Amino acid sequence: MDLATPTAKPHDRLAHALSGDMQAVNAMIRERIASEHAPRIPEVTAHLVEAGGKRLRPMLTLAAARLCGYDGPYHIHLAATVEFIHTATLLHDDVVDDSKQRRGRPTANLLWDNTSSVLVGDYLFARSFQVMVETGSLRVLGILSNASATIAEGEVLQLTAARNLETTEETYLRVVRGKTAALFSAATEVGGIIAGAPEPHVAALRAYGDALGIAFQIVDDLLDYGGTAAIGKALGDDLREGKLTLPVIRALAQADAEERAFWSRTIGKGRVEAGDLDRAQAILARHGALESTRQTALDWAERARLSLRALPDHPLSEMLEDLASYVVERIS
Amino acid sequence: MDLATPTAKPHDRLAHALSGDMQAVNAMIRERIASEHAPRIPEVTAHLVEAGGKRLRPMLTLAAARLCGYDGPYHIHLAATVEFIHTATLLHDDVVDDSKQRRGRPTANLLWDNTSSVLVGDYLFARSFQVMVETGSLRVLGILSNASATIAEGEVLQLTAARNLETTEETYLRVVRGKTAALFSAATEVGGIIAGAPEPHVAALRAYGDALGIAFQIVDDLLDYGGTAAIGKALGDDLREGKLTLPVIRALAQADAEERAFWSRTIGKGRVEAGDLDRAQAILARHGALESTRQTALDWAERARLSLRALPDHPLSEMLEDLASYVVERIS
Repeated sequence: MDLATPTAKPHDRLAHALSGDMQAVNAMIRERIASEHAPRIPEVTAHLVEAGGKRLRPMLTLAAARLCGYDGPYHIHLAATVEFIHTATLLHDDVVDDSKQRRGRPTANLLWDNTSSVLVGDYLFARSFQVMVETGSLRVLGILSNASATIAEGEVLQLTAARNLETTEETYLRVVRGKTAALFSAATEVGGIIAGAPEPHVAALRAYGDALGIAFQIVDDLLDYGGTAAIGKALGDDLREGKLTLPVIRALAQADAEERAFWSRTIGKGRVEAGDLDRAQAILARHGALESTRQTALDWAERARLSLRALPDHPLSEMLEDLASYVVERIS
Repeated sequence: MDLATPTAKPHDRLAHALSGDMQAVNAMIRERIASEHAPRIPEVTAHLVEAGGKRLRPMLTLAAARLCGYDGPYHIHLAATVEFIHTATLLHDDVVDDSKQRRGRPTANLLWDNTSSVLVGDYLFARSFQVMVETGSLRVLGILSNASATIAEGEVLQLTAARNLETTEETYLRVVRGKTAALFSAATEVGGIIAGAPEPHVAALRAYGDALGIAFQIVDDLLDYGGTAAIGKALGDDLREGKLTLPVIRALAQADAEERAFWSRTIGKGRVEAGDLDRAQAILARHGALESTRQTALDWAERARLSLRALPDHPLSEMLEDLASYVVERIS
């Protein structure tokens, strides 16, 4: 296993170390999205799958299986399954959020229509289960079907919590676990399970994926109020969409009457005007909400790194450790 | 087992014979749609599940398992699974078709919104896999995940075939198998499998479900051009939505230039005017397309009945035979 140069980004070093496996995963994805009779399916899927996503989730599965010493064929199936589930949720998310851009390209719902996105998402979800059934592991099936239910539940919870200023940090964490961390933790956990790793190692992999996913999502939510256009997402989307993210929840807890009126008009009622993003940033900064959110993301990244201590020494384990630092690098 | 009176409708006699099992299925459905943190999920699901659907698909699973002598607990799980998959597809179909009414009530996408329908459908789909994993049967998981993929593929095929006058009977049959027969045949097949029935019996149950589902859908498509408002669906929906169903495909095969222009304007281009439904009916009748479609539906119902001959004698088998006659009764 060539580990590339230590100065490369952790994500690229992982990709390099797992390049043979990733080629097999990509081949399986292409093979399984083929539909002889409904060519719309591979068209829509290829648009998204081949748009140059980072393939972070399937790499987590591959890395987990390999660092636990797996040398069978089924980590490829599981990695493809994880990417299918992720792609299905992206297709449905873009319908739910009425998004126009994803990974710098027009979304499938814009290029085709919402109905294609809904149905092709359903198809990929079904395909993901077909592929995982081939592994023959009921335990893996249980974990990934639980993760799928948690993802959908998290999305519904986010939908119903939107514009509700009473949203708690507990609810926020539940949404984050649903929309992001559930698939991260399932991805690492099933890698360990397919490798037949001992239970403490499986638990460590699950805890790593959970903490990594939470850190990843908090960074995303923080950058929505303080990042640059370079991250491929429009600044202030969450403010406009009325999403109650951690910085806002913390600023609300300390808001005076005037600030509360501001959040109520913008997040609560959706009346966002020119200059409101600047004002939101100023309020968040005044209460230290950006700084405390940043610290929470760093804490989760540290928790992810600590989880890995239970695993045997392995170059891939070190890369996963670096990856946890990398997801918070933009805010460090 | 009380088989009720022989004069009752086959569907009601089945419901009566399986009433204990159906109560257990309903209890499991209620229990599994509960979501402590996202009450929108049980609200939306209950709206649809408790709207008085006929529960035909879960009854097929229960009947198949029972007539093969099953007395374990897992036919309940499988019947609930089948109803979850069916409900998820209804929620997504109503979004795709932009429907306003289902089972005589406003649709969930109208009462809540499209996003709730998409996400709650996803949740039910994930839940269905969780419930079927509990049966511990990988074979059953394979069949139901295949069926789910076939359903989605059939829906995509229907979407892309809409307004295309070149659609063949072969494509029509593929759409029908996807949107309807795939779940019917999976429902009966997994009932036999969970009961440990011998392969010829499993094959007979699968063939019965397939033929029953096809007959059921062809009747539905025929009544769209010749039924009454009593069936709960607006007459002429398929004409307005540009769906190429069997009567139209057969009339198109014999159309003169003027008729072809008519189909091209209505089905092909979606310009449906007052009086067009009457004219469509007249053209269909002139070419015997309604009569030949009717005959095709009767043939599939007969094929369903014949499939049952391979099964052991059982009161439930007789009820399934009567059910095949019943689904074509409205056109007999």
